[in-house]
Amino acid sequence: MFPKNTWYVACTPDEIVEKPLGRKICGENMVFYRTSEGKVAALEDFCPHRGAPLSLGFIRDGNLVCGYHGLEMGPDGKTIAMPGQRVRGFPCIKSFPVFERYGFIWVWPGDATRADPALIHHLEWAESPDWAYGGGLYHIKCDYRLMIDNLMDLTHETYVHATSIGQREIDEAPVNTKVIGDEVITSRYMENVEAPPFWKAALRGNGLADDVPVDRWQICQYLPPSHVMIEVGVAHAGHGGYDAAPEHKVSSIVVDFMTPETETSHWYFWGMARNFKPNDPALTETIREGQGKIFAEDQEMLEKQQRNILTYPERKLLMLNIDAGGVQSRRVLDRILAEEQAISAA
Amino acid sequence: MFPKNTWYVACTPDEIVEKPLGRKICGENMVFYRTSEGKVAALEDFCPHRGAPLSLGFIRDGNLVCGYHGLEMGPDGKTIAMPGQRVRGFPCIKSFPVFERYGFIWVWPGDATRADPALIHHLEWAESPDWAYGGGLYHIKCDYRLMIDNLMDLTHETYVHATSIGQREIDEAPVNTKVIGDEVITSRYMENVEAPPFWKAALRGNGLADDVPVDRWQICQYLPPSHVMIEVGVAHAGHGGYDAAPEHKVSSIVVDFMTPETETSHWYFWGMARNFKPNDPALTETIREGQGKIFAEDQEMLEKQQRNILTYPERKLLMLNIDAGGVQSRRVLDRILAEEQAISAA
Amino acid sequence: MFPKNTWYVACTPDEIVEKPLGRKICGENMVFYRTSEGKVAALEDFCPHRGAPLSLGFIRDGNLVCGYHGLEMGPDGKTIAMPGQRVRGFPCIKSFPVFERYGFIWVWPGDATRADPALIHHLEWAESPDWAYGGGLYHIKCDYRLMIDNLMDLTHETYVHATSIGQREIDEAPVNTKVIGDEVITSRYMENVEAPPFWKAALRGNGLADDVPVDRWQICQYLPPSHVMIEVGVAHAGHGGYDAAPEHKVSSIVVDFMTPETETSHWYFWGMARNFKPNDPALTETIREGQGKIFAEDQEMLEKQQRNILTYPERKLLMLNIDAGGVQSRRVLDRILAEEQAISAA
Repeated sequence: MFPKNTWYVACTPDEIVEKPLGRKICGENMVFYRTSEGKVAALEDFCPHRGAPLSLGFIRDGNLVCGYHGLEMGPDGKTIAMPGQRVRGFPCIKSFPVFERYGFIWVWPGDATRADPALIHHLEWAESPDWAYGGGLYHIKCDYRLMIDNLMDLTHETYVHATSIGQREIDEAPVNTKVIGDEVITSRYMENVEAPPFWKAALRGNGLADDVPVDRWQICQYLPPSHVMIEVGVAHAGHGGYDAAPEHKVSSIVVDFMTPETETSHWYFWGMARNFKPNDPALTETIREGQGKIFAEDQEMLEKQQRNILTYPERKLLMLNIDAGGVQSRRVLDRILAEEQAISAA
Repeated sequence: MFPKNTWYVACTPDEIVEKPLGRKICGENMVFYRTSEGKVAALEDFCPHRGAPLSLGFIRDGNLVCGYHGLEMGPDGKTIAMPGQRVRGFPCIKSFPVFERYGFIWVWPGDATRADPALIHHLEWAESPDWAYGGGLYHIKCDYRLMIDNLMDLTHETYVHATSIGQREIDEAPVNTKVIGDEVITSRYMENVEAPPFWKAALRGNGLADDVPVDRWQICQYLPPSHVMIEVGVAHAGHGGYDAAPEHKVSSIVVDFMTPETETSHWYFWGMARNFKPNDPALTETIREGQGKIFAEDQEMLEKQQRNILTYPERKLLMLNIDAGGVQSRRVLDRILAEEQAISAA
Repeated sequence: MFPKNTWYVACTPDEIVEKPLGRKICGENMVFYRTSEGKVAALEDFCPHRGAPLSLGFIRDGNLVCGYHGLEMGPDGKTIAMPGQRVRGFPCIKSFPVFERYGFIWVWPGDATRADPALIHHLEWAESPDWAYGGGLYHIKCDYRLMIDNLMDLTHETYVHATSIGQREIDEAPVNTKVIGDEVITSRYMENVEAPPFWKAALRGNGLADDVPVDRWQICQYLPPSHVMIEVGVAHAGHGGYDAAPEHKVSSIVVDFMTPETETSHWYFWGMARNFKPNDPALTETIREGQGKIFAEDQEMLEKQQRNILTYPERKLLMLNIDAGGVQSRRVLDRILAEEQAISAA
């Protein structure tokens, strides 16, 4: 169950530098590549000649050439040429609206007439020189909504990430959840606590003492269909917490884009945007490595949770106050799905 | 097809020392752990909060803590606590009767009201200082009943285990099968034969000559639902065979507990109990290694036999005199299954 | 969809030297072995005793002995003996007509009464001392007919095998396809072109200059059910091309036998027969290695094509002039399949 009339992160530009990329998104086998004009194209990964995957082909003069018999495909899904053939009558393949923005390539798997790049959520950190970003991609064998639940309830940090970002006080601090239109925000503030290892390292990385009490915050923002941005940070205690002046704190945005592959698997684009020392690529890499290890800790849990849920489909899961973020996010998703079905039925 | 109102070996104590153990038994995902009182608990491996596997959690103060969001589960399947939550209304999960005895942890997957530890078969060798035991565990992708067949017809030793315990005389010696209530005993005696390699080593291990003719015996005992104990041994010929005085023979009990995982896979707990040199752990380890190699030889045969049977479900297998042990054992099993169905229908 | 009343290559003699060979062909689990008279036998890989795979057994005095309990099976599918048993009433297993010829072992999976060795296509190169042959076997997870298509349209060489036998001129040269009874021949001639790397090496291997223009030919012959023989070669330009005298050319026959395993997988026996330097085994090995690498390049393409076709079963593939070889071959196959169904319905 995933909306199709929406923008998903399909891939990052580095994935299509050398050759076309084949990736299944929302159940569709797609191929991504860059045309001669530098634009990205997304097509069905299916050559109309004999059904070969176009992603095994190559790019010639900005056009995708099938690696089986040389059919040359245009970015609109119409065959341009094929050695020794008249191609005018060849059947078209589907092309998907695709747009490059904020360092990601976005795809719209649904009704192309509704695809409007203005609908891509604005990512301020991706456009400003004051920010740096580093991230990665994991393939996770669970429904993307289990990852939304995971990210909209950070009490799991205490358990799944006990040695890096978890701490007992997360469990103890109350959580506040609110819905604003299609957005869901769930936040938690901890005062006068010891920073956990990841944040001690971040304080040091920003030239701040790591052995003093801190105020810590986590503000999770769900944006449909499946994006979660989390403002996280710590400030030396007593300087205003989240609102402290830059010289007293270190903060960043955890960036999470979940792109459904099938009903029970998804592509997880994770990363961190920070507005301190943005011009330090070594720091970017250090943070990326640390985050990559932490986020890998969720994988076994989520995949086995998925299998358990498939084994006991009739069981209802609990929806506690800590789950409010996920529950509200799914409520928004359900409404969007219902609207999409109503439109396609009309 | 497996009885559920019965005791199966679930695991050994060393498997739950460091963390909880997740294991599927009779189609049920179970988690095993030891409580603060030292008792073993067995629960559904399904956290009532969000369906995470509890086996990925940890033990704190003798209680199982979910590794996802910290729900604390009691050994009765009732949630004890969860950070920031009132848990009284949480749904229970199933707890399974479990009992530790004879160096094994036994579980009763069926109706808990019928679980009586007195129904665990008595294992004399497991309680006496005159005996030593060593064993292991294999996961076998076949119906546990194919393993019962295997163990209740040892003519396969001549072929599957030709280099260790097999010998031509097994095929030639007549086999005798009898049923006593729910027990099936099938036995074979060979007189004045050369000992095969495994038994030559055992003779030497017990300080006996290995280059003289021996009398050899194999007495297989099936105990429902899926336990096979095999008295095996050799005595220097002419001293009474099975009844020879201890100084003339070397003997032991092959111990086999088959615990169904699914309809076409099982956990195979194998081992050997011996009443000679019981205080020699190096000898225990030598025997364990040798037996482990021998029993691994059955795996490919059994798993491919299972696949063949699934491919040709309509074919009837032969039931020869050598198969009488397996045939009679399955007859007992079928009766138990029928009784269980009658009870659950009542 | 594959004919069963026909001869397929089952294996090569070296595959049954040491022990019986289990191989699934046309959906049937078969076991192949050599009897005491040196003849090859093919049986169902299913012991009538307990369903064990006979291919895990061994050969004793030319008979197949089951590796589980020693049942001795005859080449006609009738049990010969079993330790301690009267076997007269044992059910038979199927035996398959099998014939050794041309260095291959051929099997007839269908109605045994129709199996006539005279129906095996004549392979002249396999009988003459003027020819040498080297080849190999690949397991390919696609319908064998996709491989027929592949081999009956060599324009794919330009793309899939760009660094060895591909060249632009293949795309440019017209292709000619004709049907003669059950045979399909599709041919292409290129004049005055540069030889691609594989053929330059072959010219050198035959003591000919590799830096002069050549005439090149490809004559693909489909023989039902699934054999493709391809006459390939190059001659120094201006000496008559295909008809040039031996001292001006180097030529060979690409040999392809596709044997269905299931509807979506097959055994691909590939090789090359050459009539130059036939007594140079080092050259045979060099060619075999080169061809093995080239033919491995098709595997990923074909297997992903198969998956694409399974994903979009309703899509019709194009049938272009270059596909005529495959299209006509499938037409012959369809007629044979229809005839076979008519016979079995009668």
